[in-house]
Amino acid sequence: MPPHTLHHVAIATPSIAEAAPLFQLLTGETCSPVEEIPAQGVRVAFIGTLELIEPMDPEGGVARFLERRGPGLHHIAFQVPDIAAALAEAEAQGLRLIDREARAGAGGHRVAFLHPGSTEGVLWELVEEG
Amino acid sequence: MPPHTLHHVAIATPSIAEAAPLFQLLTGETCSPVEEIPAQGVRVAFIGTLELIEPMDPEGGVARFLERRGPGLHHIAFQVPDIAAALAEAEAQGLRLIDREARAGAGGHRVAFLHPGSTEGVLWELVEEG
Repeated sequence: MPPHTLHHVAIATPSIAEAAPLFQLLTGETCSPVEEIPAQGVRVAFIGTLELIEPMDPEGGVARFLERRGPGLHHIAFQVPDIAAALAEAEAQGLRLIDREARAGAGGHRVAFLHPGSTEGVLWELVEEG
Repeated sequence: MPPHTLHHVAIATPSIAEAAPLFQLLTGETCSPVEEIPAQGVRVAFIGTLELIEPMDPEGGVARFLERRGPGLHHIAFQVPDIAAALAEAEAQGLRLIDREARAGAGGHRVAFLHPGSTEGVLWELVEEG
């Protein structure tokens, strides 16, 4: 299998608007426009390799993460050439899937998450650019 | 300021040896030899952009992180051209420094950490390759 490319590192925050200047300062990158992803109950924006994610849904996973842990590193995403094949391979290797099929993610990409319970506590996202 | 380059994403684990096969599978990359960093009380190994960190010191920060949260995403590191200048700039911007001066990190690089209390809950490492 050829190496996969790191797609982004996601940081959960209660407010993209308030957090963006800090990460612009730290990375020297400019923040993208904010995109709403209603299917995942979040708003996202990119600052270089960083994705800032802010909950839209107060009952959603990101809101619960913020309540439990506060803001911070949330997940990492790697780009794969064929997300259906990557999910099948992950399942064959005994990894737990959150998404059995890819769904719509930020930027029009197809994404799916692996459960941190089988990935050393790391919420792992697969991204097929579309 | 020119954009900084993401240097690595660090994952805390109780055992590099046990965690490495998973992340080799997920990234398609090969694990480096394990390096001991006694000054930080950790052992580290790299799998592509990922750094696996395992505590050597049962009283150290990584051991306490594992007790509190279990394995998972621990910090992110960005490469800077001049770490002394980057620390001075961070302090001037009101960020809290864990290290006031750079110290020896993995791979012979000079590293310093910013406190997550002023970086949106993210433990942020600066790396000057040396």
